[in-house]
Amino acid sequence: MSRFWSPFVKDLVPYVPGEQPKLSRLVKLNTNENPYGPSPQALAAMQAVLNDDLRLYPDPNADRLKQAVAAFHGMRPDQVFVGNGSDEVLAHVFYGFFKNDRTLLFPDISYSFYPVYCGLYGIPHETVPLDEAFRIRVEDYARPNGGIILANPNAPTGCLLGLADVERLLQGSPDSVVVVDEAYVDFGGESAVALVDRYPNLLVTQTLSKSRSLAGLRVGLAVGHPDLIEALERVKNSFNSYPLDRLALAGASAAFEDVAYFEKTCQAVIDSRTALTAELEALGFEVLPSAANFVFARHPQRDAGELAAALREQGVIVRHFRQPRIAQFLRITIGTPEQNAALVEALQGIL
Amino acid sequence: MSRFWSPFVKDLVPYVPGEQPKLSRLVKLNTNENPYGPSPQALAAMQAVLNDDLRLYPDPNADRLKQAVAAFHGMRPDQVFVGNGSDEVLAHVFYGFFKNDRTLLFPDISYSFYPVYCGLYGIPHETVPLDEAFRIRVEDYARPNGGIILANPNAPTGCLLGLADVERLLQGSPDSVVVVDEAYVDFGGESAVALVDRYPNLLVTQTLSKSRSLAGLRVGLAVGHPDLIEALERVKNSFNSYPLDRLALAGASAAFEDVAYFEKTCQAVIDSRTALTAELEALGFEVLPSAANFVFARHPQRDAGELAAALREQGVIVRHFRQPRIAQFLRITIGTPEQNAALVEALQGIL
Repeated sequence: MSRFWSPFVKDLVPYVPGEQPKLSRLVKLNTNENPYGPSPQALAAMQAVLNDDLRLYPDPNADRLKQAVAAFHGMRPDQVFVGNGSDEVLAHVFYGFFKNDRTLLFPDISYSFYPVYCGLYGIPHETVPLDEAFRIRVEDYARPNGGIILANPNAPTGCLLGLADVERLLQGSPDSVVVVDEAYVDFGGESAVALVDRYPNLLVTQTLSKSRSLAGLRVGLAVGHPDLIEALERVKNSFNSYPLDRLALAGASAAFEDVAYFEKTCQAVIDSRTALTAELEALGFEVLPSAANFVFARHPQRDAGELAAALREQGVIVRHFRQPRIAQFLRITIGTPEQNAALVEALQGIL
Repeated sequence: MSRFWSPFVKDLVPYVPGEQPKLSRLVKLNTNENPYGPSPQALAAMQAVLNDDLRLYPDPNADRLKQAVAAFHGMRPDQVFVGNGSDEVLAHVFYGFFKNDRTLLFPDISYSFYPVYCGLYGIPHETVPLDEAFRIRVEDYARPNGGIILANPNAPTGCLLGLADVERLLQGSPDSVVVVDEAYVDFGGESAVALVDRYPNLLVTQTLSKSRSLAGLRVGLAVGHPDLIEALERVKNSFNSYPLDRLALAGASAAFEDVAYFEKTCQAVIDSRTALTAELEALGFEVLPSAANFVFARHPQRDAGELAAALREQGVIVRHFRQPRIAQFLRITIGTPEQNAALVEALQGIL
């Protein structure tokens, strides 16, 4: 704490991302990265702009990328916003829509960055408990609120809320912005982008860090009514004109255009998830049904924190949240078949 | 305006960056980019990380880049903050230090993003007039304030405030954070980084977009007392864990390490500025003394807006601000000798 800080800074509780170890020998199943590399077309597109033109500013409006995202989703570019990772997009969402005098609602177990944004912008909020099976009860949100945000599939549980339920949620709060954070939707969910044309209060956020294997490039997006997009553009253009660099714009656009590679790698992750789930269950784990590129699992006889530590000693890192209700779970990213086998082998030695 | 927006959004007046034309045939002297490409070592460093590892998140703490910046400036890494362009760094600076109930001071003619940040975060501010020669009068800032920010060399004038005057400014406001925004300092100024160890209220910001030819990569930084850096880290980690992608981290680090290329290209720009200034003066322009990679010039007989439009018809774009006191000036980026010759030739045809 310093007398030079703005007063709110001392109360900030920043987000803590999963460890990014500098050793590459580890089997890294802790931050939900894709086990497969980005689309070769994305790498080629970045290669094509890796030259002296980097001396020039990028397109501040990201027109080509918005066009690529819109084409993929069957939307118009004016329904698309892009930013420096979905975390930046979400930051602008929280400030641009939820900074009001009502109460924002989100599940008690969800992406742990949500309360951090509330702290950053002074947004009143309340968490709504998931049920015992970690499912969202839509009826719990049908009350006055200043906005709703949920991750779907949810993090860190992987549980999916069906599109009919998302629609009921939208209908229950027609005067608030409802944000569906679809970081993981491509691994088994149905995107709420299909509802955007019918619900002017719906905003869907997505990222290229998971299903498009570009966590290292930092690109995220939002899809919604042009009025909502305009708010995000106004905030963005009052914050940073050029959040996406030339390489990110080129790589992200090409990644959206290469649908075949995207579908192939998503399917490979889904297949591995099915296989890993069966193997974990055979080892005695209880595994929540996952529509994401990770599973959330607990072992009835073993402490999750101890398991995580023992796995780390074997060179496998997974994520463990010391948090009420989920402290006995491990969040395990789906790796390649070889990585998953290494995990299972390590667990066999531990259990 | 939409009923879904947070109330402040309707009052935002976003920053308007200089045009980024999609045609490459234009002689582009409007956004102060470097006419020379980035360091070959920076390009090689990006090449080395353009691979499947882009599936992995970057280092959220940017340790290697902070080390490179610290080494260049003779500082410690805990005195360095980095972000997605100096615009993002400045956004966090405004929120982290200037969001208080006192009044922020900055010159009436300066970087036009400053009042935009104030609008974004609701920061009370007052502009302090430059003198008739567009110089900062240090004594005008010796009054109660909630912070001071100035661009040095100033934008869009190019005028430099000497380090002794910066020091007087710091001494006059020991209880406020004084930010010296040194986007252009490498083209003729002396950096206030030299004062950081003596003034805990000093924060210096810089960018890689100008002197390091990486506008297309989006990297900026701040140097100051670790207590100030901590505030920025707290805000940043409550906003976006990973603002710098893998390519940006690698390219920026290498650019800081390649001191010889940096010095050579800066000197080439300085030499061109000297030559262009003489040619503009020969054409009848009044040119303010510039320590930046642009000149700010007016022609006593010709309207600046009309000149800018006529230049554009000749394929040369420069920047013109329709703003009190400076509406008769053109801001002209220093190009290559060939680009500068094209500008002079076009002006000869117009005048």
